[in-house]
Amino acid sequence: MSTITVPSHATSITDDVDQLHNAFSGFGTNEKLIISILAHRDAEQRKQIRDTYAATYKEDLLKSLDKELSNDFERLVHLWTLSPPERDAVLINEATKRWTKSNQVLVEIACTRSSHDLLLAKQAYHARFKKSMEEDIAYHTTEDFRKLMLPLIATCRYDGSEVNMTLAKTEAKILHEKIKDKCLNDDEFIRILTTRSKSQINATLNQFKNLYGEDIIKELEEDSKDEYTSLVRATLECLTYPEKYFERVLRLAINKTGTDEGALTRVVATRAEVDMKDIKEEYLKRNSVPLDKAIAKDTGGDYEDMLLALIGCGDQ
Amino acid sequence: MSTITVPSHATSITDDVDQLHNAFSGFGTNEKLIISILAHRDAEQRKQIRDTYAATYKEDLLKSLDKELSNDFERLVHLWTLSPPERDAVLINEATKRWTKSNQVLVEIACTRSSHDLLLAKQAYHARFKKSMEEDIAYHTTEDFRKLMLPLIATCRYDGSEVNMTLAKTEAKILHEKIKDKCLNDDEFIRILTTRSKSQINATLNQFKNLYGEDIIKELEEDSKDEYTSLVRATLECLTYPEKYFERVLRLAINKTGTDEGALTRVVATRAEVDMKDIKEEYLKRNSVPLDKAIAKDTGGDYEDMLLALIGCGDQ
Repeated sequence: MSTITVPSHATSITDDVDQLHNAFSGFGTNEKLIISILAHRDAEQRKQIRDTYAATYKEDLLKSLDKELSNDFERLVHLWTLSPPERDAVLINEATKRWTKSNQVLVEIACTRSSHDLLLAKQAYHARFKKSMEEDIAYHTTEDFRKLMLPLIATCRYDGSEVNMTLAKTEAKILHEKIKDKCLNDDEFIRILTTRSKSQINATLNQFKNLYGEDIIKELEEDSKDEYTSLVRATLECLTYPEKYFERVLRLAINKTGTDEGALTRVVATRAEVDMKDIKEEYLKRNSVPLDKAIAKDTGGDYEDMLLALIGCGDQ
Repeated sequence: MSTITVPSHATSITDDVDQLHNAFSGFGTNEKLIISILAHRDAEQRKQIRDTYAATYKEDLLKSLDKELSNDFERLVHLWTLSPPERDAVLINEATKRWTKSNQVLVEIACTRSSHDLLLAKQAYHARFKKSMEEDIAYHTTEDFRKLMLPLIATCRYDGSEVNMTLAKTEAKILHEKIKDKCLNDDEFIRILTTRSKSQINATLNQFKNLYGEDIIKELEEDSKDEYTSLVRATLECLTYPEKYFERVLRLAINKTGTDEGALTRVVATRAEVDMKDIKEEYLKRNSVPLDKAIAKDTGGDYEDMLLALIGCGDQ
């Protein structure tokens, strides 16, 4: 569930647009005003604001924001203001340009979006970059990484809830055998991860637990210093327990020496309107500290205010 | 361009539906009446007819047709009456159940449909079979065949016309090297075929010709008794010259001892509303005999009449 709070009364798009324009005018920028508007409008409202702003002031709102803001706050407001499909397209495009460290972002987007949302992101990618997501990902990866990542992003998974239990048992055995033999790059292993529906994979993981008494995701944890293994683990976790995956990304981003603002910004901007409520619960359970307290401790200024507003803990 | 002829005056859907129902009533079936209606309605009209028929007579038109008709004529009318995305979904599902001989159908659908049409077919597949096209194809193929076919069907290619000439040259060199070394299952070779846009691949094939004085598709012909090589060849031909590919499928289907009705029916049903005009021109150029004459010589009865109506050479 979403954590942003949107005014219960209908807001006027033209009012919002004029106020944003005022926030940019004169000496200095009124960051508080920007947060009070943009952090409290849903995707559809932000789209209307951006369209109306462009029609009124002949400039893309994102461009105006980039001129006025800076650093982490700018990045967060920019990502948040993009439509969700455009945002995913931008994140994937950036990831294909930075090798290895960013592979996790590709897995994250490929596995936590619905087929429909992934498709919209692909269309946004075509429109914006005049290429396909698949060709850029395939071009920038090699060997096992390409073998896993291309079908992961390319496949249009079935989103239904039907499950074939016999198949789940057979494929749990395949997964077990390949893990035992340390063959995580095996064709059949990758086929199961990249093509089965989320419900089917969840059933397979349950069968794995029933048959072998072990949690496959925990099983992979021991080896997770190896980058490929940790991507396989992220794949399975994103497909079946996205809130646990995102909790971990946030935990590692915050508890580091020096916050990883890139990860913190990405997770808050992409999940606030989706499942941030679940992620916050998961965070509290795992760390015994509420996420907002942890964020407030680690960040400051407008960046902190915007993050807290998006996770539903701001002042407004 | 399409070869079907649709009445220039607006037709009444309810009239069509009642006439079809009459065609099934009493002794015998009025096949001529069925052809005169269904072969002369476009996809949108056929959809409305099917919807209205179901609402009026509480039975799917396809079910009624299957009860009344038989053999090749039944198959042709059935495939034709399906919406294009459903038809592709059905053809792919059948192909995943019959090993090897049907791999060409998978390549054909993956490479001659636009990204948008392929996407609609995937959605129809989800709705009808409660699974994804990708998982069935991956499950029913192995080794090199899966390595080529899964990304071929999964990738959402960019449909735009922009071309990067430097890249075309680089990738033409890669293709040439891999063909020379007989490594058609090489990762890079497959990456280029399965992820680049049709315009980009066309530019790469032109660069190949400029650099090496050879046509890559002809180059692959010599080896085409090997099934994998012939699929690679079909891939490149479907991506760049679909009308040539379909001409060849028709030629081989007709000029065989014993017609290959499966292929003939499939090509006519899937291409009549798309590019059958180009395929007919290609056929005449290559065989010095018009396609309708060749079909009339090789087929008979209602099946012949329906085929000729769909390729725009019927009596009506």
